Amino acid sequence: MKKVLAIDAGGTKLLYALINEKGEFLSDVEKVFTPKNIEELKEIFKTIIKKYEEDIDIIAFATAGAVNNENTKVESSTPNMPEGYNSLEFSNLSNKSVYVENDANAAAWAEYKIGAAMGEDNTITITIGTGIGGGFIINGKLLRGKSGRGGEVGSMKIAGRGRVCTCLRKDCWESYASGTGLQKTAEEVAFNDEIFNLSIFSDKSPKDITTYDIINGLNMKDEYSKKVFDIWKQDLITGLINITNIFDTESIIISGGMGKFIDTEEIENAVNSEIVTSPVKIKLAKAGNYSGMIGTALLACEKI
Amino acid sequence: MKKVLAIDAGGTKLLYALINEKGEFLSDVEKVFTPKNIEELKEIFKTIIKKYEEDIDIIAFATAGAVNNENTKVESSTPNMPEGYNSLEFSNLSNKSVYVENDANAAAWAEYKIGAAMGEDNTITITIGTGIGGGFIINGKLLRGKSGRGGEVGSMKIAGRGRVCTCLRKDCWESYASGTGLQKTAEEVAFNDEIFNLSIFSDKSPKDITTYDIINGLNMKDEYSKKVFDIWKQDLITGLINITNIFDTESIIISGGMGKFIDTEEIENAVNSEIVTSPVKIKLAKAGNYSGMIGTALLACEKI
Repeated sequence: MKKVLAIDAGGTKLLYALINEKGEFLSDVEKVFTPKNIEELKEIFKTIIKKYEEDIDIIAFATAGAVNNENTKVESSTPNMPEGYNSLEFSNLSNKSVYVENDANAAAWAEYKIGAAMGEDNTITITIGTGIGGGFIINGKLLRGKSGRGGEVGSMKIAGRGRVCTCLRKDCWESYASGTGLQKTAEEVAFNDEIFNLSIFSDKSPKDITTYDIINGLNMKDEYSKKVFDIWKQDLITGLINITNIFDTESIIISGGMGKFIDTEEIENAVNSEIVTSPVKIKLAKAGNYSGMIGTALLACEKI
Repeated sequence: MKKVLAIDAGGTKLLYALINEKGEFLSDVEKVFTPKNIEELKEIFKTIIKKYEEDIDIIAFATAGAVNNENTKVESSTPNMPEGYNSLEFSNLSNKSVYVENDANAAAWAEYKIGAAMGEDNTITITIGTGIGGGFIINGKLLRGKSGRGGEVGSMKIAGRGRVCTCLRKDCWESYASGTGLQKTAEEVAFNDEIFNLSIFSDKSPKDITTYDIINGLNMKDEYSKKVFDIWKQDLITGLINITNIFDTESIIISGGMGKFIDTEEIENAVNSEIVTSPVKIKLAKAGNYSGMIGTALLACEKI
């Protein structure tokens, strides 16, 4: 059975572990912080690889950024990674086969193969954290687009309230329905709605209200928090309706930090009551925090 | 070479002609009006088929409504077609092989095989007329979804100005960026903006201003018409940005009656200046008014 060294390269940390072609872990998951400098990053990759190289068949990366269709490098500029990351030729890191996949695609593949979407050949995994990412599986294949940059569903424009996203564009779905979006909605409602004056957070500056405040407020029946969360939820639902109308998938899997705050049954009912396609199932991700590593390992074993 | 009787079944009229497997017409295109009654419609289909049956290999329909993945019948309710249309078993109409395809999918396939998107394995055809329809080709295959109902991009929610669509949902792209949408925008601007008082249409009731009025007004440098058209164009662009960010296709082909009013180069530049994926080409459809018949004939020849 093939053995893969899987490396999840994110803006904050690098995770790595040995995984077999069934997606089972053969080692503990190790962690190092991502350096700010591309030369340093290359050295760290080489050190990690050297440690396992003799023992493995493939090295598989799950990475931030858009990956080319040859799965050899990152094509886009990736603000969270060191400058020059998109000129890194991953294959030069080792004599073993190297496979590179976008992290959202890899996570979606893990859900499809061993997670919440097992056996569903049309399924989308939406990762909702600081931003929103998407991995789209259509007829059992990843949607990549002509250049590998497809699936940027967080940049879908909805709502039209003119909110400026962290990417400086206006009305991106992720500026409303991500964790950052919830915080922004909390700030806007606090500034514009008198309901805030009666809130348990009324002595806080609107800018300082966090996602966790809102979740706590919900549990404490705070009306302001409920209003903020309802707006956020509606923005989330709007995007999910759009996706369902276009893709008509069997399921949408919700992954990422915000997943634990939503009632998937409520969201599923709301989405299905407004789509023009056939009903979709909305489920939480099951493949866990290491789905990026698992997914890229499984894809690499199929491809190489 | 295979010979196909292609029938385009729309809400107003039925078109039919003989087409070969290269998409070439072997007969003139005939036209009859669509009856209001399902039994009458069946009889017309049978009469058309009987006329050509001995001479052909396949009967291929391009039809309004969502078609199942087996390409045997219409799954959805289709308000423009006679009641009971979605229980019609097309295969019972003839002893020859019968193939059924959604008309927007068929049009996209025609553009891909013999039209504006030839050789582009990732391409989307957007039909902009009374409504908005989409046919999506990904890696050389039609996107159908789990039930065949995918591609309903006209129901994508954008803008958030709360406009009610003909489907009674709010903020559908087609309620803004279709021909009907242009008319609605004309009405809204006339009601809400003083610019209308100086317009060449100021003596008209806002409800009576037509798409053609606005196009005429544009040519006559009428400021009100320009404002209306600019809003419409921006709503069109917003949807095209969303599609490009998700699909990263080589091209988007604009088909349908509204196509002739847009400057594709201007739209392409606007879309490409705001996407996060790689540049898309925006082109007018080339396969003509009979692209539905051509597309379903070509698909039928591949599948049967």
